[in-house]
Amino acid sequence: MTRATEPGRANIGVVGMAVMGSNLARNLASRPGNTVAVYNRSPGRTRALVAEHPDAGLVPSESIDDFVASLARPRTAIIMVQAGRGTDSVIEQLAERFEPGDIIVDGGNADFHDTIRRERAVRERGLDFVGAGISGGEEGALHGPSIMPGGSPEAYATLGPILASIAAVAEGEPCVTHVGTDGAGHFVKMVHNGIEYADMQLIAESYDLLRRVGGHDVPAIADVFATWNAGDLESYLIQITAEVLRQTDARTGGPLVDVVVDQAGSKGTGVWTVQNALGLGVPVSGIGEAVFARAVSSRPAQRAAVQTAMSERPEVQPSYDGFEDDVRAALYASKVVAYAQGFDLIVAGAREYGWDIDLGAVARIWRGGCIIRARFLDRIVEAYARDPQLATLLADDYFADAVTRGAQAWRRVVATAALSGVPAPGFSSALAYFDSLASERLPAALIQGQRDFFGAHTYRRIDSAGAFHVLWSGDRSEVPVGD
Amino acid sequence: MTRATEPGRANIGVVGMAVMGSNLARNLASRPGNTVAVYNRSPGRTRALVAEHPDAGLVPSESIDDFVASLARPRTAIIMVQAGRGTDSVIEQLAERFEPGDIIVDGGNADFHDTIRRERAVRERGLDFVGAGISGGEEGALHGPSIMPGGSPEAYATLGPILASIAAVAEGEPCVTHVGTDGAGHFVKMVHNGIEYADMQLIAESYDLLRRVGGHDVPAIADVFATWNAGDLESYLIQITAEVLRQTDARTGGPLVDVVVDQAGSKGTGVWTVQNALGLGVPVSGIGEAVFARAVSSRPAQRAAVQTAMSERPEVQPSYDGFEDDVRAALYASKVVAYAQGFDLIVAGAREYGWDIDLGAVARIWRGGCIIRARFLDRIVEAYARDPQLATLLADDYFADAVTRGAQAWRRVVATAALSGVPAPGFSSALAYFDSLASERLPAALIQGQRDFFGAHTYRRIDSAGAFHVLWSGDRSEVPVGD
Repeated sequence: MTRATEPGRANIGVVGMAVMGSNLARNLASRPGNTVAVYNRSPGRTRALVAEHPDAGLVPSESIDDFVASLARPRTAIIMVQAGRGTDSVIEQLAERFEPGDIIVDGGNADFHDTIRRERAVRERGLDFVGAGISGGEEGALHGPSIMPGGSPEAYATLGPILASIAAVAEGEPCVTHVGTDGAGHFVKMVHNGIEYADMQLIAESYDLLRRVGGHDVPAIADVFATWNAGDLESYLIQITAEVLRQTDARTGGPLVDVVVDQAGSKGTGVWTVQNALGLGVPVSGIGEAVFARAVSSRPAQRAAVQTAMSERPEVQPSYDGFEDDVRAALYASKVVAYAQGFDLIVAGAREYGWDIDLGAVARIWRGGCIIRARFLDRIVEAYARDPQLATLLADDYFADAVTRGAQAWRRVVATAALSGVPAPGFSSALAYFDSLASERLPAALIQGQRDFFGAHTYRRIDSAGAFHVLWSGDRSEVPVGD
Repeated sequence: MTRATEPGRANIGVVGMAVMGSNLARNLASRPGNTVAVYNRSPGRTRALVAEHPDAGLVPSESIDDFVASLARPRTAIIMVQAGRGTDSVIEQLAERFEPGDIIVDGGNADFHDTIRRERAVRERGLDFVGAGISGGEEGALHGPSIMPGGSPEAYATLGPILASIAAVAEGEPCVTHVGTDGAGHFVKMVHNGIEYADMQLIAESYDLLRRVGGHDVPAIADVFATWNAGDLESYLIQITAEVLRQTDARTGGPLVDVVVDQAGSKGTGVWTVQNALGLGVPVSGIGEAVFARAVSSRPAQRAAVQTAMSERPEVQPSYDGFEDDVRAALYASKVVAYAQGFDLIVAGAREYGWDIDLGAVARIWRGGCIIRARFLDRIVEAYARDPQLATLLADDYFADAVTRGAQAWRRVVATAALSGVPAPGFSSALAYFDSLASERLPAALIQGQRDFFGAHTYRRIDSAGAFHVLWSGDRSEVPVGD
């Protein structure tokens, strides 16, 4: 009964000993100054963890009462359970036992709306609640994730140093910052995941084009990605793409990628990102196309039916000198668009929910630990340092120049893909987005005319204030209708 | 006090005398056999309507009690108020006064989730509730809309003939059918509006390409649309596009479209469509791009910033013989994709919410009265008659053949747009969707490999059942992980 006789010796606790929770606990325990209390609803997992890591100094509990008793004050506990009702149940168990000044942290992949609700409810009970997005998967949790905490500044004063002790380090800085109040951390984590969807889709399109148009075999494409990873595309996702493509299937002797069923799954955060962006009026078409591309892939009956019904197939365009470089340029430019759209969504979320979010700090903490970590993020940090009020990343001098320099290549790739029948929804959508921003006049004017025609929705004029309507069913004169 | 002394003389009532409600009431009153009770919260509108149309036989009431008393049993009242809380309030007022067998109809643009909730609540009180989507705008309401009612079959038995009396007629059939129970009607109306967004965006892109690449002036483009309207693209939206483009601005003497601010507004049903499709896992990329295109247009600060930052602009590609026909083919094929995606969403909604929806009947009632009415819908009716279980419209022989025949033109248009810097998110997204379905293998296999690498999400193999995982951090062997 050591727990009962030595109360309060852990400065941090973790609830939930599935792989993310146990790795996070081990990470915490490995840092000087931390003593980590651990608890899982079924005690078997806790016992196994402690047995496997006897030197980690973990303080196990088999009841929630013992767990709470094992925490020094102010008590700080990180919940690492499957997002959803389980989280509410654990919050309730802790809140019943915690005292003012104690901090409940949700490190799961919560919907930020839930986090806002929970933060309010827990705060009303005199406790602190911090929703913290944690990215990096199992390896990140163990060796250093990127951490995106919300909650109050007061809670962060206590929690920040603990999180900083376990976060990834990039350019000498821990990948954690106080993102904003209540649900800000989980919101930004959601956007992170949405960008991850876009990034993966763009890489997938690059691979497909290098293979089907470029005519490269899979090992050669692995080499291309490895080469790209030495340049300005250097990133975790490019690196692991090379590794996945290098993987040989033991059964067939061919590339693993050729025996994997080509239907991409998802866990839902990409869907959340796009749904929220739609609600906030932010065009995140790159993320949207990435989410939809996974959905299309997962409709085998439709795919088979269309392939049966097709009477002819498009002729793949011949590759050309420099095609590989063109694809690299298209990938880079499309990636800039995906990040530009993601940061726009953060801006809109901050405005809607009253968060003060430092965009440069967000880019900074994504440079290490997380799935989208990339050299590229240094450029984003610099862009927001030059102008924290930047209208869009695409208007930053560095990115505008980079995209403009690569634009002809990008255009050639989109054209080649279209002519060849190789789907490139990410590349083409990103290009259309860029060209929409870059067009002096958009045909949205015609859409306003149509809307006025069939629904009397009115339009504005470029040369005078107020709203106008044409008497389409009458003498077709224009009438002002107020503003 | 005629109302009190002659109770129950109206067979149908309308609540809400804004333009949609008063036009619907006038439409109802104009049909033989109907006597129409009308009521508005503020009586001024009711008085004005009756004064303007003294021969319509409208039965006005200035209180909800009088209104209810003026209805014959079973009482049937159509609510035509702004969607939202106002609707709940009117439902409550009617439900308090109605008796078993009476029917409350919501003819507004309600969120189908609300309709499901309201139907249940009203049914529990022994009354019938019917959410009915009504499309066609003000003119449609007056002369014949397309009507998409949900609710119980029993309610439809009473309501159907009344709605059939006022609906548009296409090919001799009234544009109304019992779509399905509870929220089915409002769900299908939502999808109708989503398709409308896509349709309008595709037309806008056609116009932009004819102008910027094709080099046509606005009146010439109006003529092109008028010509198209005589062929298989014949539709209300193509027709009014020609009319909008023909409109000359009285102040400048130039085309109206050139003085309209090019920022497209929206009322939210497009957003709903895409949000729900995301939740149901249905790729409606064409509708998504249309919604996002409006959002991009409405971000003038970003547009200005990018245009300032750009160091060079793309060179518009030269037009070529047959470009106009190519654009027509691209529009047609992209439109097929938009409808295919929309019908997929109806299938998914029916499965999720337990509705038995006849897709052919939906296409049939969209042929008249509504904004997306088009000759094209006859082909969809035929496709579902050939095979009610069609996997996708794109697999129907007629559409597969039509799209295949137009595919090279479609590809040329997307390529030309990309090379010219003319944004064509609708055309290119639709093409990518088609090419995704048509590709034997998709790079989704690589995405599954990436997901297994960083998150141990596992993958399936094409040659054996079950799920697998590679020990990426270990010896990189493959292990089965159950299913």
